[in-house]
Amino acid sequence: MDNVDRIVELIETASGMREFDLIIRDVQIVNVFTGEINTGSLGIYKGLIVSPYVDDSAKAKSIFDGKNLFALPGFIDTHVHIDSTLLTPTALADLITPCGTTAVFADPMEIANVAGMNGVKAFIQSGSDLPYHFFIEVPSRVPSAPGLETTGGELGLAETREMLGWDSTISLGEIDPSKIIDLKTEYLEKVLQAQAVGKIVNGHTAGLSREKLVAYACARIADDHECITYEEAKERLALGMCILVREGSTERNLETLVRGLIGENAATHHWMMCTDDKHPDDIASEGHIDYMVRKAVSLGLDPIKAIQMATINAAMHFRKDHILGSLSPGRWADIILAKDLHELWAEVVFFKGVLVAEKGRLTAAIKPHSFPKWLHQTVKITRGRSAMDFRLETDAARVNARVIKIFPDQIVNEGKTTTLGVVEGNIQTVPEMDILKLAVVERYGKNGNIGIAFVSGFDLKKGAMASSVSHDHHNIVVVGADEASMACCVRAIERMQGGFVVCNGDEVLAELALPIGGLLSDQRAEIVIPALKKMNAAAWSLGCNLPAPFMTLSFISLPTVPELGLTDKGLIDVVEHKIIPPFSPYP
Amino acid sequence: MDNVDRIVELIETASGMREFDLIIRDVQIVNVFTGEINTGSLGIYKGLIVSPYVDDSAKAKSIFDGKNLFALPGFIDTHVHIDSTLLTPTALADLITPCGTTAVFADPMEIANVAGMNGVKAFIQSGSDLPYHFFIEVPSRVPSAPGLETTGGELGLAETREMLGWDSTISLGEIDPSKIIDLKTEYLEKVLQAQAVGKIVNGHTAGLSREKLVAYACARIADDHECITYEEAKERLALGMCILVREGSTERNLETLVRGLIGENAATHHWMMCTDDKHPDDIASEGHIDYMVRKAVSLGLDPIKAIQMATINAAMHFRKDHILGSLSPGRWADIILAKDLHELWAEVVFFKGVLVAEKGRLTAAIKPHSFPKWLHQTVKITRGRSAMDFRLETDAARVNARVIKIFPDQIVNEGKTTTLGVVEGNIQTVPEMDILKLAVVERYGKNGNIGIAFVSGFDLKKGAMASSVSHDHHNIVVVGADEASMACCVRAIERMQGGFVVCNGDEVLAELALPIGGLLSDQRAEIVIPALKKMNAAAWSLGCNLPAPFMTLSFISLPTVPELGLTDKGLIDVVEHKIIPPFSPYP
Repeated sequence: MDNVDRIVELIETASGMREFDLIIRDVQIVNVFTGEINTGSLGIYKGLIVSPYVDDSAKAKSIFDGKNLFALPGFIDTHVHIDSTLLTPTALADLITPCGTTAVFADPMEIANVAGMNGVKAFIQSGSDLPYHFFIEVPSRVPSAPGLETTGGELGLAETREMLGWDSTISLGEIDPSKIIDLKTEYLEKVLQAQAVGKIVNGHTAGLSREKLVAYACARIADDHECITYEEAKERLALGMCILVREGSTERNLETLVRGLIGENAATHHWMMCTDDKHPDDIASEGHIDYMVRKAVSLGLDPIKAIQMATINAAMHFRKDHILGSLSPGRWADIILAKDLHELWAEVVFFKGVLVAEKGRLTAAIKPHSFPKWLHQTVKITRGRSAMDFRLETDAARVNARVIKIFPDQIVNEGKTTTLGVVEGNIQTVPEMDILKLAVVERYGKNGNIGIAFVSGFDLKKGAMASSVSHDHHNIVVVGADEASMACCVRAIERMQGGFVVCNGDEVLAELALPIGGLLSDQRAEIVIPALKKMNAAAWSLGCNLPAPFMTLSFISLPTVPELGLTDKGLIDVVEHKIIPPFSPYP
Repeated sequence: MDNVDRIVELIETASGMREFDLIIRDVQIVNVFTGEINTGSLGIYKGLIVSPYVDDSAKAKSIFDGKNLFALPGFIDTHVHIDSTLLTPTALADLITPCGTTAVFADPMEIANVAGMNGVKAFIQSGSDLPYHFFIEVPSRVPSAPGLETTGGELGLAETREMLGWDSTISLGEIDPSKIIDLKTEYLEKVLQAQAVGKIVNGHTAGLSREKLVAYACARIADDHECITYEEAKERLALGMCILVREGSTERNLETLVRGLIGENAATHHWMMCTDDKHPDDIASEGHIDYMVRKAVSLGLDPIKAIQMATINAAMHFRKDHILGSLSPGRWADIILAKDLHELWAEVVFFKGVLVAEKGRLTAAIKPHSFPKWLHQTVKITRGRSAMDFRLETDAARVNARVIKIFPDQIVNEGKTTTLGVVEGNIQTVPEMDILKLAVVERYGKNGNIGIAFVSGFDLKKGAMASSVSHDHHNIVVVGADEASMACCVRAIERMQGGFVVCNGDEVLAELALPIGGLLSDQRAEIVIPALKKMNAAAWSLGCNLPAPFMTLSFISLPTVPELGLTDKGLIDVVEHKIIPPFSPYP
């Protein structure tokens, strides 16, 4: 509610002094406050709900026949990295708007790591008329591992304070437990900054012991979205952290958590829903928050509770219940019409009182995204174009090398050691044994760093694949059987100014440009999804058998996920937070 | 959490690097988030909860043996006019702290009407170490009836904006529906000011029709505390207004509302509790929020739900759940220990980790209140000391007079008409028929206004009674059988600089000084409660048979409660919002 004029007109409409802009007639209105369903008509003015009690004689510029469908509030995704979709916020509408998602609370830590506060600003401004509310969880760890990686942008205390003051920000995004528990003053200051302006602090507590959880909770962390078991969720809730049930592409926690809720017939009002990281093809094939609601209901959860989790619970927790999450007067008229609450598919979706999707298709005409030119020019490398740049040199005849072992479905790496041969002073990969080279090429024009180590799990028999999406620093990560293929990949990414690529020798087998910050495509979902499938097919053609090769590749260099990570600065012992040598001479 | 040092120390304590200030050992901890009860020990540091999982080996400066009592969060009164108790915030602690009330959300509209923003500031600052959190609901109607009454203070847009920015304010206080529905721009601006800083707007919807409710709700009013029936409550909740169940001295809504909740087995998380106006003797005899919890449980409500209504629900609704309402890490250590949840009496009360009450008695040593001198000097009258000032003059021999008819238990007046005689040009009261004179004497030294009319319902056979507590303008209201007694009352109030008084002719029968703003006693509850009883007895001795004569007197001049009100400016037609003559010549 921007100004008094608007509220005056709204009240005048409620009082019968103005006609409605829209009446949605004859719907079964799902009231998320009372949990009841009442047949009636919804009156809307200037994008806001005026009344759920409109009578048939009321006048409106437009009448929509609700045909006795259920009317419920649009869904809220409480924590998402939009970058995981490879789509701009604008292009994402193609996928999520028909699913009934009308509010997205996004943590744009990726663009922030690439381009700092100005990158986030450009991200927000790129979609000037999105068909969903776009609120920002201010990224709290940019960079994630200060001193251990080179990033394009940084969000310090001053930037964080400024961003927390924006109307478009809703919280401080998932704060790293180690920063809190290890008493990093800068991060504690960020927590206090958020709370001082009445915004919550989102948590991130994967695998924390109870002792560490308690220490973390002392900072008044409001929630967690990393619970895998119901016991974990209850342990966090018991410490005052609300639960964001997550169902992404790889992290799928809904079934276990909802079964727990049902089993105990537990109260659900501190529970809500998020996708965190969900790929565009998965959204296209199964859905978004609506998929979570359907799945929860199919498991036996009361549809009203499932809908509350996807709407009002989230709005209350994030302190936006005065504008979001219910079909109450004064709230945004974000409305899903559906035939059935047990098999809940959005027949029609309204956003701010405008019909934006119908029968699974976006119908709204949305202005194309608009990003500044400089955000298309973020790949600035000085080294990595030549095979020579990927040599790991030694005088020894053989070495003991540390190998990062990755697992298909988990964001977790294991460190192991193996003995490798040396040819002409260069330590050799062993593709037939799945021992490949992994490199991270600094791409912000800052120092020309290249970190090199060995990896197992990609199983490329030949060639290489690379990505400029590489959490959280988003340098270029490349894995390969040989150095020439790796260099070919880097040259392709430089040419595209970001993207995914698969090469064999000097041949590019497949490429997908992600020119916006090196993270996002400038194309629509219908282009990106098949292109992504081609990328995966190209990786598989080289022998890789990971279900989502580029997703795995993008997470491997995280210097925050135990046991080993690789950044442009080198191999990282995640537990000890330090750079370690990738090999030692064979004794 | 004021600063980083504190949070650092808190986390260090959680991590075992510091000893606790206090461990409350062996308690059954009521977890208002999960609804479960777990036996354990609570660790506290610098007034904050650190952990509910403290083990026996942990060190602490002090150990309190919880003896397997239940431990639950301190109670929150979500809407109260402290002035109704006649006590300062400091003196109120004697009564409410032993009841386990550890947070009070107070609307100080009375002191604001007397002394504006500086009055509120003095009110907040008067208790520098209260044993309860004292948050302010910024009064939204000061004055309540602009143009129809003279007040000492005003809170305009600038003052309201300033106050909403204070850390000590929590919301915009109960906003008058007519201001919203009738589109008074200044009030709509106040609503937007509150929402712009993330604070909620409290409602006040007594008796509103559904149409008016909807119009009112359009301003995103967050709640209502005026529901008398369960149907009313559900109607408001359905419009997105949360329910503050009220149980004061005269307005007693809990039983009906809780029976409704139980009858429908309804979800309770949008429900909380408040006292609104509760007299000190009632608090002393039956309790405060604890009384409401006991009563709700005795009616059959699940004790966990009742406790949640009195704690976390309130904290969430008012967006203070990160510091209040649960025994989670980082929250204030406001703790009640109790033997039984079904008959819930606070055995021990901790506030910010300090034992403040035990077995019904305040044990904390609290600094005496301190109010500035000017706030003891707020009764500045220019007229009203003489019987002549209370003559209602006419040339007619008889008149048709409007009579305000009051009812003992309701804040509602009825207008009726009666024929009265005139002696020496002065219209006569008829005490034997219960037709008395009512006057409101302006007391801010602004204009010397005296409004005079007739009233029925006090039944004084002789004499007069007066009060400087007179909602919402708090001029001197006096009701009498004769003008001399009325003048005697006013002189006594001037001498005391505020208070209650009963006079007969020139004799003062009883008086109770309320020198702070003319509203509050400077004495403790143990002095004020018997004094108030004496005042009532004196009024009864003159024939009055109202159960709470001074309470009724203090509400009679409200120019906002239909049908008639009386202010210093004259008789008010409340429905038409205008001044009307108190009589007309007999035709």
